[in-house]
Formats: sequence, structure tokens, C-alpha cells
Amino acid sequence: MSILEAYLKEKKELIDLALPLYLPPIDTYPKIIHEAMHYGVAVGGKRLRPILALTTAELVGFNDQKAIMPLLCSLEYIHTYSLIHDDLPAMDDDDFRRGKPSCHRVFDEGIAILAGDALLTYAFELLTKLARPQGPFSEGLVLQMISKVSHAIGTKGLIGGQVVDLQSENKIINLETLKFIHGNKTAALFETAMVTGAMLGNASKKQMKAIKLYANAFGLAFQISDDILDIKGDTVLLGKTVGSDEKKNKATYPSLLGLEKAEKLMLKCISDGKTALNIFGNKGRLLTELIEYIANRRI
Amino acid sequence: MSILEAYLKEKKELIDLALPLYLPPIDTYPKIIHEAMHYGVAVGGKRLRPILALTTAELVGFNDQKAIMPLLCSLEYIHTYSLIHDDLPAMDDDDFRRGKPSCHRVFDEGIAILAGDALLTYAFELLTKLARPQGPFSEGLVLQMISKVSHAIGTKGLIGGQVVDLQSENKIINLETLKFIHGNKTAALFETAMVTGAMLGNASKKQMKAIKLYANAFGLAFQISDDILDIKGDTVLLGKTVGSDEKKNKATYPSLLGLEKAEKLMLKCISDGKTALNIFGNKGRLLTELIEYIANRRI
Repeated sequence: MSILEAYLKEKKELIDLALPLYLPPIDTYPKIIHEAMHYGVAVGGKRLRPILALTTAELVGFNDQKAIMPLLCSLEYIHTYSLIHDDLPAMDDDDFRRGKPSCHRVFDEGIAILAGDALLTYAFELLTKLARPQGPFSEGLVLQMISKVSHAIGTKGLIGGQVVDLQSENKIINLETLKFIHGNKTAALFETAMVTGAMLGNASKKQMKAIKLYANAFGLAFQISDDILDIKGDTVLLGKTVGSDEKKNKATYPSLLGLEKAEKLMLKCISDGKTALNIFGNKGRLLTELIEYIANRRI
Repeated sequence: MSILEAYLKEKKELIDLALPLYLPPIDTYPKIIHEAMHYGVAVGGKRLRPILALTTAELVGFNDQKAIMPLLCSLEYIHTYSLIHDDLPAMDDDDFRRGKPSCHRVFDEGIAILAGDALLTYAFELLTKLARPQGPFSEGLVLQMISKVSHAIGTKGLIGGQVVDLQSENKIINLETLKFIHGNKTAALFETAMVTGAMLGNASKKQMKAIKLYANAFGLAFQISDDILDIKGDTVLLGKTVGSDEKKNKATYPSLLGLEKAEKLMLKCISDGKTALNIFGNKGRLLTELIEYIANRRI
């Protein structure tokens, strides 16, 4: 296992442990909604958003993992809410998520909608706890973060991306629309994770600019690699059926650009991301390796 | 028209004007989600939550309507989100809301789910703007309000009430469960409106205590009067079918207590609410009249 893989494993375990602890206990009345929230969160994943926030905070010199944990969990709750709602029959209609039945298949649609609502709502409640007296951060900083997060997941971010994605179903879309969908549906929350991590770490303006450049490159590289995985990946490893994008007639970077050009664009993103990190010198090593790792991942 | 009616009309018009202005413009890309958000908000209603917040702020001496407007609109956006999601086929499955087609009937279910999500998310974004430098309030105070609001509309408030309501469909429930449903689904947001209005008005502890007592009495009186209206009301005035609770086998205060006892309980709430306001002297007149008015309303 490489240093990066060991790091990702360690941080993922840390976050996996914290995620159920910050939620209302599973047996709190009314039980079923807390079960659904915990189920959605426990289905798992790479925990990339919290890891990115943590790594970015560390990059700018903030090392108190416990203090930053409410931010990390909030980001993952928000990601989980978006997945639960995306999977609903009225949206992408997916019965499985990471190889397990999606929330509305285990519970019912009504509870799944409410579990998503509740995770989103709870994420905001948890964010407020970062501020004094409960947390170590200033009230002004936490308020700025809430403003950043809420904007990034609204109609000019996450929700906007999902709307255009829904509207594009079974339609031929161009590269501009594809970029809008993924830039908002996926990359906006990655960027927010890194920016909020950097905010808590009190990053300088110059550092923040570099982090945003890296985040944009990371988001696009992640998406193209996701598209390529759907062509070249392994169904068992992925926990979802390979070739499903093509079967669904879904526009992807490879389908619009051709596989070769898509791979070239991904390599350019990796290079851009690495260049952005130059100002951090050796400290940027982890994120440098991460963007390469993500682009070459098999799951 | 009584002084109270004139007051309610004036404030409702003020809020009706502000509501579309604080939202992202209707023709912002992606247009359909902004259309759905504006539609949901424009369907209207009494705007009781923002009016309660405003009246309570005024009660404790805060009279800057413009400064408080982001709070008032946020409360109404949150209320609208909860109605849009409640009306969905997977929830209460209502095709009409205030005599007009519900959001998922005008748009589709996916867009309605996202419009609810977006109104909720946007409400939090707007709340942050109450703080300096964009607004006149301290960051600490606004953060406390966000904490209060998010808690009140989570699984221990609004969402919790809707969960138990969903789970109680076609079941015989007891008075305790009915109280839980309405205490959380309806009264929690009324209370939050009054408490946050009082917070912005810098209420004393003693004032806050009285306002909470009044809010609880108000919430229950409102709910019982709503139940009674469903028996005695006028279908045309209400914009919904009278007798629908009975047809749906829905437990209500009159169905569990009998009409007479329910009316007595409502009168007790009115009396309790008025008593709580005693410390405000003549200044409490508007809210005193309001709780009577609400209990005796025909729409």
C-alpha cells in the first residue's frame, strides 16, 4: 500500500467512525427516520469530500482533526442527501447504490425523501456547532462557511446541476451542458469541501486561489475518470453495472469527445492540478498524488 | 375591517411583495427550478409565520421591517418547502394546494422534490445575509438563529412530525401521538418564527419565556381551529374540500376528543396565550387579538 493509500484508509476509517456519532441516535423517536438517515450514511463510499476538506485544512497548517470533524461530517451528510434524492424513482430511479438497495427500496419513498431533507437540515445544524462556545472557531468564520456551503448546493450549484441532468435525459446535449451538469452536480461540492477546509485552516488569499484552481482540475479529472470507469471498469469492484451510461444513452466526456480526447483532457487536468499546488512545495505532495490516484482508480 | 385585519392585510402585502424579490430571479438558468420555486411561493396563504416573526420583533421594540425581511422570507420559504414535499404522491398525495394545482402537478415530481430542496437550502443562505456586513445583526446572533431554525425543522421538529403523520395513516392513534404530530409539524415552526423574531429584537429572558408560552398556546389553538374548520368550514372559502379529514380517516382533535371538548381546549389555549402576554401590557394587544382571530377564522 502506498503512503497515499494508507493515508486515505486511515482518514476514511476516522470519518466512518465519526459519521454515526454526530447524527441523532438511531433509536431516537421517530425511529424510522433516524434508521433511514443512518442507513444512507452507512452505505459508505470513499468519503472523498470530508477527506478533501481535512487534507486541505492540513495543507494550510490546521491539524486539529477533532475540531474540524463537524465540517467533515456535514459535507458527507449533504453528499448523502443528494444521493438519496437522486436515486428516487422521480429522479434517476436507481434501485442500488454501491451494491446495496437504495434508501427508498429499504424504506419507502416518503421516508427516503424525508431522510434526505433531514440530512440536509441536520448538516446546517451541525455546522453551527463549529463556532464558539461549542466549537473553537469564530462565529463570523462559521457564518461565512454556511453561506459558502448553502450557495454551492443550491440552484447555482448542486441542485442546478441535478436539474439540468434530469432535463437532459434521453436528449442529445453538447459539451457546454455536460460541463454545467458535472461542474455543479459533482465539482461544486468537491470545491466547497476544499475551500471550507482551507477557511477553517485560515488560508491566505494566495493559498485559497491555488486551492480553487486545484479543486476545479480535481473535479473534472474525477468526472472524466468516472466516465471512463463506466467503459473500462470492473462491475464487481464498482458495485454497479459497467456500460450503464451507454445503455442509458447518457452523454459523458468519452461519448462527446471520444475516449482518446477524454483521456487527454483528464491528463491535462491532472497536470493543471499539480501545477496549482506548486506554491505549497513538498506539503502539496498528498494532494498531488491524490489527483493522479483518483484519475487512475479502479473503483 | 378591524385594526387587526388591516394590520394582517398590510403585513401580508408587504411580505407578498418581498417573497419573489429575495429568490433567485425566475429566468435564471436553469429556469424550470426557479419557476417551480416561485410558483410554490406564489400559491400564497396567510403568511402567518413571517407575520408572527415580525409582530413579535415589534412587540419587543424592533421596528426595522427591511432589516428583518430576510428572516421573514426564509421562514416562508421553509414553510413552502415543507408543503411542496408534503403534497408529493409518496407523502400526502395532494393534487391541490389552496385551490391551485400542487407543485408536482404543474411541474413533475422530480422538479418538485428539487424545488423543495432548493427553497430549504436557499432559506439558510438568506439567513446568513442578516449578519454584518450585509445585514445589521451580529454574526453570533444570526448563527444562534440558524441553529434554532435548523433544529426546529429537523427530525426533532417539523420532519419528525411529518414522519409520524405518514406512519399514522390509516391507523388509530392516541392523543399523545396527535399532539406529537402537530406540535412538531405545525407548532414548531410557529414557535421558531416568534422566537427568532424576538431574538432579532433582542428580547429579555422574561420576554422570551412569555413568547414561548404564547407560541405553544397559539400553535395548538391554530391546529384545533384547523380541524374544526374541516368539519364546519366552507369549501369555496377554504380552497379545499371540507370533510376531507373524516374521509381520509384522519385523527383530529375533534375526532379524538369530540367536538365540544376540542372547542373547550381551544378556548383554554386562547386564554393561556392571552395570559402569557400580560407582561407586555397594551403592547401585546395585536397578538392577543390574533390568537382569538385565528381560532375563529373561516379560512
